[in-house]
Amino acid sequence: MKNMLAFASDYMEGAHEEVLQHLMKLNMEHNPGYGTDVYCDRAKEKIKSACECPEAEIFFLVGGTQTNQVAIDTMLESYEGVVAAATGHVSLHEAGAIEYTGHKVLNIPGHDGKIDAKELAKYLETYYADENHEHMVFPGMCYISHPTEYGTLYAKEELKQISEVCHKYDMPLYLDGARLGYGLMSKGTDVTLPVLAKYCDAFYIGGTKVGALFGEALIFTGKKVPKHFLTRVKQHGALLAKGFLLGAQFEALFTDHLYERISSHAVELADYMKKELVKRGCKLYLDSPTNQQFFVVENEKLSEIADKVMYSFWEPADKDHTVIRFATSWATKKEDVEELLKLFE
Amino acid sequence: MKNMLAFASDYMEGAHEEVLQHLMKLNMEHNPGYGTDVYCDRAKEKIKSACECPEAEIFFLVGGTQTNQVAIDTMLESYEGVVAAATGHVSLHEAGAIEYTGHKVLNIPGHDGKIDAKELAKYLETYYADENHEHMVFPGMCYISHPTEYGTLYAKEELKQISEVCHKYDMPLYLDGARLGYGLMSKGTDVTLPVLAKYCDAFYIGGTKVGALFGEALIFTGKKVPKHFLTRVKQHGALLAKGFLLGAQFEALFTDHLYERISSHAVELADYMKKELVKRGCKLYLDSPTNQQFFVVENEKLSEIADKVMYSFWEPADKDHTVIRFATSWATKKEDVEELLKLFE
Amino acid sequence: MKNMLAFASDYMEGAHEEVLQHLMKLNMEHNPGYGTDVYCDRAKEKIKSACECPEAEIFFLVGGTQTNQVAIDTMLESYEGVVAAATGHVSLHEAGAIEYTGHKVLNIPGHDGKIDAKELAKYLETYYADENHEHMVFPGMCYISHPTEYGTLYAKEELKQISEVCHKYDMPLYLDGARLGYGLMSKGTDVTLPVLAKYCDAFYIGGTKVGALFGEALIFTGKKVPKHFLTRVKQHGALLAKGFLLGAQFEALFTDHLYERISSHAVELADYMKKELVKRGCKLYLDSPTNQQFFVVENEKLSEIADKVMYSFWEPADKDHTVIRFATSWATKKEDVEELLKLFE
Amino acid sequence: MKNMLAFASDYMEGAHEEVLQHLMKLNMEHNPGYGTDVYCDRAKEKIKSACECPEAEIFFLVGGTQTNQVAIDTMLESYEGVVAAATGHVSLHEAGAIEYTGHKVLNIPGHDGKIDAKELAKYLETYYADENHEHMVFPGMCYISHPTEYGTLYAKEELKQISEVCHKYDMPLYLDGARLGYGLMSKGTDVTLPVLAKYCDAFYIGGTKVGALFGEALIFTGKKVPKHFLTRVKQHGALLAKGFLLGAQFEALFTDHLYERISSHAVELADYMKKELVKRGCKLYLDSPTNQQFFVVENEKLSEIADKVMYSFWEPADKDHTVIRFATSWATKKEDVEELLKLFE
Repeated sequence: MKNMLAFASDYMEGAHEEVLQHLMKLNMEHNPGYGTDVYCDRAKEKIKSACECPEAEIFFLVGGTQTNQVAIDTMLESYEGVVAAATGHVSLHEAGAIEYTGHKVLNIPGHDGKIDAKELAKYLETYYADENHEHMVFPGMCYISHPTEYGTLYAKEELKQISEVCHKYDMPLYLDGARLGYGLMSKGTDVTLPVLAKYCDAFYIGGTKVGALFGEALIFTGKKVPKHFLTRVKQHGALLAKGFLLGAQFEALFTDHLYERISSHAVELADYMKKELVKRGCKLYLDSPTNQQFFVVENEKLSEIADKVMYSFWEPADKDHTVIRFATSWATKKEDVEELLKLFE
Repeated sequence: MKNMLAFASDYMEGAHEEVLQHLMKLNMEHNPGYGTDVYCDRAKEKIKSACECPEAEIFFLVGGTQTNQVAIDTMLESYEGVVAAATGHVSLHEAGAIEYTGHKVLNIPGHDGKIDAKELAKYLETYYADENHEHMVFPGMCYISHPTEYGTLYAKEELKQISEVCHKYDMPLYLDGARLGYGLMSKGTDVTLPVLAKYCDAFYIGGTKVGALFGEALIFTGKKVPKHFLTRVKQHGALLAKGFLLGAQFEALFTDHLYERISSHAVELADYMKKELVKRGCKLYLDSPTNQQFFVVENEKLSEIADKVMYSFWEPADKDHTVIRFATSWATKKEDVEELLKLFE
Repeated sequence: MKNMLAFASDYMEGAHEEVLQHLMKLNMEHNPGYGTDVYCDRAKEKIKSACECPEAEIFFLVGGTQTNQVAIDTMLESYEGVVAAATGHVSLHEAGAIEYTGHKVLNIPGHDGKIDAKELAKYLETYYADENHEHMVFPGMCYISHPTEYGTLYAKEELKQISEVCHKYDMPLYLDGARLGYGLMSKGTDVTLPVLAKYCDAFYIGGTKVGALFGEALIFTGKKVPKHFLTRVKQHGALLAKGFLLGAQFEALFTDHLYERISSHAVELADYMKKELVKRGCKLYLDSPTNQQFFVVENEKLSEIADKVMYSFWEPADKDHTVIRFATSWATKKEDVEELLKLFE
Repeated sequence: MKNMLAFASDYMEGAHEEVLQHLMKLNMEHNPGYGTDVYCDRAKEKIKSACECPEAEIFFLVGGTQTNQVAIDTMLESYEGVVAAATGHVSLHEAGAIEYTGHKVLNIPGHDGKIDAKELAKYLETYYADENHEHMVFPGMCYISHPTEYGTLYAKEELKQISEVCHKYDMPLYLDGARLGYGLMSKGTDVTLPVLAKYCDAFYIGGTKVGALFGEALIFTGKKVPKHFLTRVKQHGALLAKGFLLGAQFEALFTDHLYERISSHAVELADYMKKELVKRGCKLYLDSPTNQQFFVVENEKLSEIADKVMYSFWEPADKDHTVIRFATSWATKKEDVEELLKLFE
């Protein structure tokens, strides 16, 4: 597999060199456990500053599904569910990790992965107008992803509207930022970290897919932090003994704009790849402005390139075509994209 | 804190140099996700071989509480509980992670952390003799730790007897090996990996505390592997996207006997420390043959050394004395032990 | 409220006289607890005989949501979900009782409350064809209701086809019979208790809505009975101390065809009510052959009759009309229907 | 079994005649569902009045384990456990119903079924003094039973002291009153319903064992009522459709002091039985002032009476003796006690 081109996902390599060097430098230092170290402290300060949100409370977790599970379970009352797009990661691809904690995922339609503020409002109105709603699951919070599972992005105004609907019904808004860097650095977006801190009650900045070995920074923007969060993280089996490994990685990512630099790199390569593949006759499945690109490809072509490039199967399009995903990342090299393009000449 | 002596625990540093170098070497390789990579494959083969258990099935997880939670929950039927010493980690110090998954921890007495085969048998006899036992929690498996939370070890014959009691009642025996290396390398022990593979139905080899950045290798010895284990790990939020990081670390630990070498180092230093501290008048709380050493120290003395050495508070002994723990690890240096000894001269 | 006509639901009265008399007769007898009494034994024999299924195992529970929760949770593995119509009771109106036990309800479309065998097959094919299905919730069983929440019924051939799809994928088929009597006695149905016992792996015969004070008879038809079921019922808080109350009620219901007689009565009155209301210009929302009848009524009309008859609000139709439900039951009197009809003259 | 004397438990018969008549009277009335009826309203008023606690909020549930499960789960935060005697019903005999909802039962010693305020205080002090307590289960409430599982009773002063310890640590005190009537009517007790309402944050008045067919009245005394309680009851599968059956039974029990009258009857017979059996040389296991009496009986004697009287096996005493329980109830007749006494002449 080592000689194949790698566009299957954005979690196929280790960590960015600057992250790795930071880990090596502290390797033989003695640090206290469970996130009580100076690296976590410093990383939190840097993230608060980047979010322009001094009142934020930040916790570091290991992975994305884990972060969604812990955040959602601890933000909800036990009789509440989380509203999400039917295509959302928590709805489909987390093996029921939310239901495992006792909460229903309440689905509303997804539009290329995004939910619509009006449809959310309609869902909530209908729910509360139903005379039997006390026999139904209370909608207790709202989950969105940014970029979505389809690489698409919300505009600032869309986030504002969704946030307003949520808050009208006293529901926190939570944003899954597994690939957040690739959204923030997308050309033309008006969504920044301070915008997220303003409209979301909680969100996470993904490290695993954006330059870290592993790790996600979960940010409560000050309005509703679950009580005894550390204990609850432990209760979920999610508390890393060597929390300083997480703090150090995020400290590196938020030093000298590393997180932004490496995200930009991936997004630019993805944009270049998209344009060049379209020029070569490839059909876009949808138009993503981030690091994930979706194409409808002939099955015959797929057989031809199968041993040359790793890609992700997405779904069958028709009997002769398949939707596939090519993802770039911080680790993708320009020359790899050029090699990929050659396969379509 | 950087200038203090560090004997508080065995998870205060990063990874052993050979582990770290292995991670650096593969850093920019492209590997598939979720443990389907060659590093995991190779690490599994090495562990099977070390355990002389070719039929074992092995999975890598991130942390100890997580591994206990996932292993116990998936090995139990939903109406069963796990029998454990009242002092066991799962009984006391995992924030209810087992109960969170719906299972009761059924306590029997602990003797310096160990359970007794006869007491276990008595517990099970009494349970099944009770006419109301269908209204009680079924004892579905047995949990032991080795070394225990008090640094003590089972002898091979003790494991054999516990295993026989378990199997008489059709209960799997599970062993928590968070610090397993320090047990295997203890002087005079007759418990080896093949012995564990023979008597336990499942156990884990701890990496986090024994040379890895993080990671535990969970081994099912062939008799009872939970179905769809990967899905269930994901459902618990415990599936690491970059599983190759776990595989690579265990590959390094099981190459050229690294796991044994670094464990021996820690145990020898602990033994030296114990003997020298006793010579200097320190009182042992109990006699541990592994890397954790427990002493009853005057509170006045503790105040005196508080800014010179990091140790673990264990429990109050009386109003003037406290039980503390000094732990060595793969990362402890001989000269640090010498410095520690000076504090007691 | 006592002078109003009562068509809001089929659980507004106590028990049929013959059931009540049976309870009174045994009132001062001494019976052992938890369903180990002769009344339960006799009721089970009568039900097995009515189902022509001597190998059935039968348990009595108190209520419908409780029965669904216990049956589904105990029939599923912990990583599995239950496939159900989006309009199913377990999907919408049980306050998340299924998710509370850790299981996802996997929705497929409902057609007037029914699922379609072909759509079920399509769902399962797509699931297993998805390369990522191990990261998704396994479809572990199928839930249907009969009559459905919309009063509709499956034909024998439809049950056969659904059953075949389920068994092809090794999924048990479970049928919610909260109102089963009103389905079995519907004119023209070819579905009988033996048909259900043949095609379903488990189903329940509803007592609460069909002549009992309370109680549901859960029947496992012999292929897959959850182990230690009594213990698991207790674990759910669902084990009635005086199980003989349940056994006695079902013994009465299955003596001299009482269950059938009282169900017929309700269905005949519902049919008469439907035809007469349609004659009087009422618009059917859908054509139900059982005891629940759904009408689209002008809001103005509803205000007019609001203090004369209790009905169920179903959903808004448009701004001037509402869908309502009139339900008959074993307790409905012919003269009450006549009074109701007068309101629409 | 019908001709045997019945002293095995207090839930072997149906309901007291006055309760049954009340149910028969309302049988064909039309009542709305889920406890929104006038019977529930009236019963609540009567209970509030008996408790001298106008601010109480009252809910009716079906059974004892169910009530404990729902009350404890809804009063606890998800990271909290319930402190209880090791011999408590929730600790031992509810098949893990508490753990099933994710909560640990934190055991302290039981003394003939009772906990000691000082030992409770010591437990809580030690917990909060432990530097690692954030890695442990928070003690979130306290469970006691009255009468206990051994028939013993708390004095008012003991309840006061336990309550003070609980409230010092911001923990609600919850009392399981499955057999409450038999405690309230015990000779010499100074514990009344108003005393319970004063010192407990929640408790339940048992109906199942004290004159009702089934049913328990759960009372929150005003300080901490779980939000959206009805929804959560439904989520647990514990919401009875025909809630009016519960309301009506409790209305009857709290009319003309029926609950007290029938409880007195049972306690007086138990007292008589105890004294007479002791006169006849029977050895008390402990001295219970309520309806449950425990004796140490020769196994030979037990064989002799085995086909004449139903009793409860409690535990083996030694190889020749067994601890057994004889329970009286509202349904026990004086002549049955006389017959029982004859067996020991």
